[in-house]
Amino acid sequence: MTALSSPSPDAPPTPITFDDIVEAAERIRDAAVRTPVLASPAIDALVGAEVRFKCENFQRIGAFKFRGAYSAMTLLDDDQRHAGVLTYSSGNHAQAIARSAALLGLTAVIVMPEDAPRIKLEAARRILLDAAPGSEVITYDPATAVREELGAELERERGLTLIPPFDHPHVIAGQGTAAMELIEDEGPFDAIIGPVGGGGFISGSSIAAKAMLPGCEVFGVEPELGDDATRSFRTRTLQTVRNPRTIADGARTSSLGRYTFPLVLANVDDMMTVSDAEIARAMRLLIDTLKIMVEPTGAMATAGLIRLAHEAPDRVAGRRIGVLVSGGNFDLDKMDAILELARA
Amino acid sequence: MTALSSPSPDAPPTPITFDDIVEAAERIRDAAVRTPVLASPAIDALVGAEVRFKCENFQRIGAFKFRGAYSAMTLLDDDQRHAGVLTYSSGNHAQAIARSAALLGLTAVIVMPEDAPRIKLEAARRILLDAAPGSEVITYDPATAVREELGAELERERGLTLIPPFDHPHVIAGQGTAAMELIEDEGPFDAIIGPVGGGGFISGSSIAAKAMLPGCEVFGVEPELGDDATRSFRTRTLQTVRNPRTIADGARTSSLGRYTFPLVLANVDDMMTVSDAEIARAMRLLIDTLKIMVEPTGAMATAGLIRLAHEAPDRVAGRRIGVLVSGGNFDLDKMDAILELARA
Repeated sequence: MTALSSPSPDAPPTPITFDDIVEAAERIRDAAVRTPVLASPAIDALVGAEVRFKCENFQRIGAFKFRGAYSAMTLLDDDQRHAGVLTYSSGNHAQAIARSAALLGLTAVIVMPEDAPRIKLEAARRILLDAAPGSEVITYDPATAVREELGAELERERGLTLIPPFDHPHVIAGQGTAAMELIEDEGPFDAIIGPVGGGGFISGSSIAAKAMLPGCEVFGVEPELGDDATRSFRTRTLQTVRNPRTIADGARTSSLGRYTFPLVLANVDDMMTVSDAEIARAMRLLIDTLKIMVEPTGAMATAGLIRLAHEAPDRVAGRRIGVLVSGGNFDLDKMDAILELARA
Repeated sequence: MTALSSPSPDAPPTPITFDDIVEAAERIRDAAVRTPVLASPAIDALVGAEVRFKCENFQRIGAFKFRGAYSAMTLLDDDQRHAGVLTYSSGNHAQAIARSAALLGLTAVIVMPEDAPRIKLEAARRILLDAAPGSEVITYDPATAVREELGAELERERGLTLIPPFDHPHVIAGQGTAAMELIEDEGPFDAIIGPVGGGGFISGSSIAAKAMLPGCEVFGVEPELGDDATRSFRTRTLQTVRNPRTIADGARTSSLGRYTFPLVLANVDDMMTVSDAEIARAMRLLIDTLKIMVEPTGAMATAGLIRLAHEAPDRVAGRRIGVLVSGGNFDLDKMDAILELARA
């Protein structure tokens, strides 16, 4: 694995355009779900706007991550397909890679920490049963091993191609297809609000939004406990966060990347943070009113919308707003903790 | 209120045809949600069939009941509109009537037992704030008052028109529009499975299914604890049940009605019952795999599908099956009890 240069605010290593998103949409068309867009008169009344929710919790594997993974894997050349792919992830990206490998008949190796939730280890292993021979979940002890070194060894030994969870042009192009569909189906919008972890989703979404709706604002929402992207956005210098303990497990990434940092600076109009209690309350609101199951990260953009409606009502009132619901993979046995937090 | 004759298995008091459903669909088009249809590869694999879920939990007020209520209220004549409507319900039909009255600018009076869940009383009262003056929720003490007598008094005094929750031709025609949409959007189907309480939903659905897909089977699912319709179906004589304690609160009705009993006998191919534990497990399955919030009654048809796949796999295997998810109005604070029951 070649050493990567430090993320710079100037420009992504290779440009990513709306055409890339249109092409990604073509490649994933038969495999991905064109997810429904939902609305709630109660939420509209609450925030004083006309809101449309793009429900990626209904995407394959329960999250938008399938779009990027499949989009990237359909661009592999014959040699790469033959050798297979590699990723590190303990979350939805792992399942997205596993499912894409199963659909495309490729081998996938997924590197996960041995203390990852058992339910996620098992889900990845189960899906990989349908992928090509050689597919496996490899666990490591995060106290003694560095996953990048382990990954580099696997890349070298087995000739695997790394598909990272967000900082990759084909992954970002794939993630942009959700906002593209939202705008095609329910546009125009005055603003689009999305969650920010490593920034792949908001980067792709912002490219689509700015190309399709030149006047449309794009807002990114982060957990207060993992506010690196917001600080990076404000200072225009890459900031990091270490092991944030937020309930939004999809946003525990340590920083934006070489592609996503410049794209966020170029395309995102504002960033905001929300507390875990606000995320829990938004999660409950979406369950109670939209009747959808969302994971904490999937409720972040809604939490941001509600905070914005309180703090800066003129940026919300009377506008048409698209909200990106990123995923719905939540262990129902842990709902008590969310309900308690929502009451805080 | 005129005394009703006892339900007879012979024929409904007036015929209800597919044309009535087509006309109801026209009347509700601008007010109702054309709800999404979802699928899950995991559920398909579990039952060995290709299953499509019509998600009426995304309907206005969170349940199919809006279709029937609005369908009936748009057929009132000028005098009836001027005087307003009346219903008895402690459940989704009350909210459906309230919301329809608000949309149509009518007065609605809803009679509810004073021990109805406070959340439901408040929801109905809140919606009625948007309806015409004179709208109100009237509570009664079920120990000392008979709601039919109270209702008859209100009908007489105020000239209100009763819109009952299921046993009414315009209500049944409205409920049939969900299956019609399902077949239009995702048909054909070999079988359609729906929940049965008073029988309005399955009656309307079966009229649509038999007209649009002559070979399509229709199955109804009831809770074991409230199995009156299944016994009525098998004996061809109306059976009743008293205050069944099932978690499926939408199916606690005491019996089929004058319209729904003959329609069930004529159009439904088979009836089955499921335990409360099976309902709870199906609820969890729908939340975990489809990422939708459903109420217990909304998971009944899925529970029936799973039981059928176990007991009579040849009636399921390799077939295309439409499942009606009736609603999603569930108090999340009571999820613990469902999860415990699901583990039983």
